Amino acid sequence: MGNFKGHALPGTFFIIMGIWWTTRCVLKYACKKHKRTSYIGSKALFHRIEIFEGIVLVSMAITGMLGEQFITGGPHLALYDYKEGQWVDLLNWHHFTMYFFFGLLGVTNILCFLISSLPASLTKLMLSNALFVEAFIMYNHTHGREMLDIFVHQLLVLAIFVTGLIAFLELFIRTSITVELTRTSFILLQGSWFWQIGFVLYPPSGGPAWDAMDHDNIMFLTICFCWHYALSIIIVGMIYAFVTWLVKSRLQRFCPSEVGLLKNVEREQESEEEM
Amino acid sequence: MGNFKGHALPGTFFIIMGIWWTTRCVLKYACKKHKRTSYIGSKALFHRIEIFEGIVLVSMAITGMLGEQFITGGPHLALYDYKEGQWVDLLNWHHFTMYFFFGLLGVTNILCFLISSLPASLTKLMLSNALFVEAFIMYNHTHGREMLDIFVHQLLVLAIFVTGLIAFLELFIRTSITVELTRTSFILLQGSWFWQIGFVLYPPSGGPAWDAMDHDNIMFLTICFCWHYALSIIIVGMIYAFVTWLVKSRLQRFCPSEVGLLKNVEREQESEEEM
Amino acid sequence: MGNFKGHALPGTFFIIMGIWWTTRCVLKYACKKHKRTSYIGSKALFHRIEIFEGIVLVSMAITGMLGEQFITGGPHLALYDYKEGQWVDLLNWHHFTMYFFFGLLGVTNILCFLISSLPASLTKLMLSNALFVEAFIMYNHTHGREMLDIFVHQLLVLAIFVTGLIAFLELFIRTSITVELTRTSFILLQGSWFWQIGFVLYPPSGGPAWDAMDHDNIMFLTICFCWHYALSIIIVGMIYAFVTWLVKSRLQRFCPSEVGLLKNVEREQESEEEM
Amino acid sequence: MGNFKGHALPGTFFIIMGIWWTTRCVLKYACKKHKRTSYIGSKALFHRIEIFEGIVLVSMAITGMLGEQFITGGPHLALYDYKEGQWVDLLNWHHFTMYFFFGLLGVTNILCFLISSLPASLTKLMLSNALFVEAFIMYNHTHGREMLDIFVHQLLVLAIFVTGLIAFLELFIRTSITVELTRTSFILLQGSWFWQIGFVLYPPSGGPAWDAMDHDNIMFLTICFCWHYALSIIIVGMIYAFVTWLVKSRLQRFCPSEVGLLKNVEREQESEEEM
Repeated sequence: MGNFKGHALPGTFFIIMGIWWTTRCVLKYACKKHKRTSYIGSKALFHRIEIFEGIVLVSMAITGMLGEQFITGGPHLALYDYKEGQWVDLLNWHHFTMYFFFGLLGVTNILCFLISSLPASLTKLMLSNALFVEAFIMYNHTHGREMLDIFVHQLLVLAIFVTGLIAFLELFIRTSITVELTRTSFILLQGSWFWQIGFVLYPPSGGPAWDAMDHDNIMFLTICFCWHYALSIIIVGMIYAFVTWLVKSRLQRFCPSEVGLLKNVEREQESEEEM
Repeated sequence: MGNFKGHALPGTFFIIMGIWWTTRCVLKYACKKHKRTSYIGSKALFHRIEIFEGIVLVSMAITGMLGEQFITGGPHLALYDYKEGQWVDLLNWHHFTMYFFFGLLGVTNILCFLISSLPASLTKLMLSNALFVEAFIMYNHTHGREMLDIFVHQLLVLAIFVTGLIAFLELFIRTSITVELTRTSFILLQGSWFWQIGFVLYPPSGGPAWDAMDHDNIMFLTICFCWHYALSIIIVGMIYAFVTWLVKSRLQRFCPSEVGLLKNVEREQESEEEM
Repeated sequence: MGNFKGHALPGTFFIIMGIWWTTRCVLKYACKKHKRTSYIGSKALFHRIEIFEGIVLVSMAITGMLGEQFITGGPHLALYDYKEGQWVDLLNWHHFTMYFFFGLLGVTNILCFLISSLPASLTKLMLSNALFVEAFIMYNHTHGREMLDIFVHQLLVLAIFVTGLIAFLELFIRTSITVELTRTSFILLQGSWFWQIGFVLYPPSGGPAWDAMDHDNIMFLTICFCWHYALSIIIVGMIYAFVTWLVKSRLQRFCPSEVGLLKNVEREQESEEEM
Repeated sequence: MGNFKGHALPGTFFIIMGIWWTTRCVLKYACKKHKRTSYIGSKALFHRIEIFEGIVLVSMAITGMLGEQFITGGPHLALYDYKEGQWVDLLNWHHFTMYFFFGLLGVTNILCFLISSLPASLTKLMLSNALFVEAFIMYNHTHGREMLDIFVHQLLVLAIFVTGLIAFLELFIRTSITVELTRTSFILLQGSWFWQIGFVLYPPSGGPAWDAMDHDNIMFLTICFCWHYALSIIIVGMIYAFVTWLVKSRLQRFCPSEVGLLKNVEREQESEEEM
């Protein structure tokens, strides 16, 4: 994974997950608000979406785990080289472990779908577990590297830890859509920051990496991290606006009978207020 | 910003915001308590105040961002000097980023006013975001400076972080006026501490800065920080007393019919108790 | 304060406060449980107790502040010696500031009694403020001292910080008696640990202080801190048992008419269960 | 305790406690869900289980305390050797203190059973106390040792602290079964990690300990910790599945009259859904 592609791949994964979770969350909120009549139907839909999500997560995790093991230069399931007396490709095993916990999250998603007696908060717990484990491993990932390398990974750990913390708090306290969207915006941040790390440590242009001992680089990456966050907030906001508009307009087109009538009533009320 | 004015300006901004938020918060609380009859009218008033606040915040942020960019010696929107091979005026870009997030808070204020379907907790989230980003940048602001400089900035980070934390907690748990006033008192503390930093690092009298390696200076600034906090608590208390008294006396003058009657009843009850 | 008495005095103060708050808290709980008939009367009593507490706190704080200033070798309200160009007795000013915040707590107690419109959570906020400020100053109190000195003060900071944190959490979430007693047990711990610091750094027997560079001393003080905590838990438990027993027996003696009858009924039920 | 057995013993203790608490917690949840008719009976049963737990905890703690004191080479209740002028076997006293706090937890369990007026949250408080004290002592346990030794103990402290934190949060916020099972899975993790420490520092095969200065060992132990956690999650999941199945099948066998009928009704509903 010590190259540009190795950082772009998980980055893309987290960006897709972030966009997907944001869309689902806003969709749920918008449906709950506008489509009260057919809400029970949409509830079954969201239930079915969850198992689909679980299957995607599990297959992604298995792909990642196999990839880390059987890539050229990977450990091929060997953990300790008794001849040389040393550990084999520990960094690959690190990534393997992270993928495994995201796989566990997927398994939990599927189990929660199949067995209805399981408590609903289990998925959230496994999400926060997967994120905390990722943050923990990332934190212990850069022993003995250079200042800049450690700094960009620390920022990554910060983004992951905050996401895990919000998921953990959601376990205890009933959540609002604001908190959920904060979580998904941090997942987007994590994804785009993976790309940034790739650009900083392994420039795809083939040029040399950034000067690891230059304080100015750290000063710049500090604000760069904030800009990534601002960008992810703006993306979440745009998804929110788009999905809300879509739900509104679709409702008018497909169920003009009921909802349209309601709309007319609302419009009349509004025009009355304007007078 | 590396001069006295550069610290006095944001200091003044935060002091004004602190006093304003305290006043609004106490006003809301006092109105809710005393003027139940015309509360619906005042609710619309507070709604209108919020958009005014948003516009002020956005214009302040834009002024700040433009100022940081186009001041003499500023970066003029250049981020990297390819000739010299180094970053351009990163400290100005730091300040630019902080202003940008406060601008986002203002934009959210305006959007929440215009679009009523937006969740109400969004403003609080953006406030805590702006504060956390400020604390994060301030924390990475003083790489390679001297002990005293780092210490006063660390205290500033402490004040900002606590404010952000309280705003974040307000997202999850329903708030009381006590918690809100704690938050505004910390904003006042932040403002007055900016002034203190200006006095310590760039004495306006033109004399030399304080000895950066003297342990006694750090010992003094520790308690000085506490005195600033005590002062901000006392100011919040005085605003509380003044606004409550104002609301009470104004109510008697303008709506003597209803409220006055209620008052008389209360007075009678009190005089009964005294007998 | 750099002697045995200077640590025994605040230690005694906190032990008395801890015992008093424990007693009051248990008394309130026991009264609420057993004496439902005359609960309104006892509520007024607890209200009156609070102003008494406020007056005691204010007078203690003023005594402490004056003592720190006008003791032989104290700063006599001088903060900076312009002749010598150095700060005057900063450690005394540190203690002065801590006393001041406990004085603020007392003032708040009195104000909450006098003005009934003040929110009730204000006292709790000022308590957590006073404790956090104490922890903050204690943390910055030992710059440039020896290892053992720093370690015992760090443990003190730990005890104070935890107390403040619990008081802060009580602001947000409705409390049970368990949480309140945890807080008072930590105040007891703080008091007894002040005594321990006195014994370690300024042995009253006049012998030499403990070896500040011996790792074994630190290992011992670690468990000694836990024993102090165990002791404070046991003291709180004994107060709980004693006060509960007192309330029960007193009720039977003074109000035999109502409560006694209730008791008899309960006894009959119990004897029925035994059959 | 500085040998393999000294780490395997507490490890076994915590694994047993973890399995037991998981079983009890799932049993309670399953009974609450399926056996509503005879729930009052099972409530008395769980009450009786608690006193049994208390007695087991107290006897375990006393055994541990006596063992630490009167083992060959133990301190035999001597704390300070006045002849040699040094502390006696402080590590044993450390372990003694940890056992003492778990003993306090047992005593609380028994007291809560005997005296019904005691608040129910007391047991949870004492559990979090025992865990925090253990984490605190463990944290100060390895002054002046080698890197690997400190690292494995730090991971242990992390596991203990998280367990204590969850128990502490359960004091404030009403808990779900998910949170409780997280806590028990961390207790399992703690137990298995004790075994891992034994294997790392005192290999039972009699070979040399792991190279304490090798970064690769730390990198491996990082993921090893995560694998232990994954294992403990899977064990908790298996206990959950087994106990739920047991409760379901037992109910059908022993109370076929009521529950069986209910089951039939449910089956009919299910078969209807399948059509």
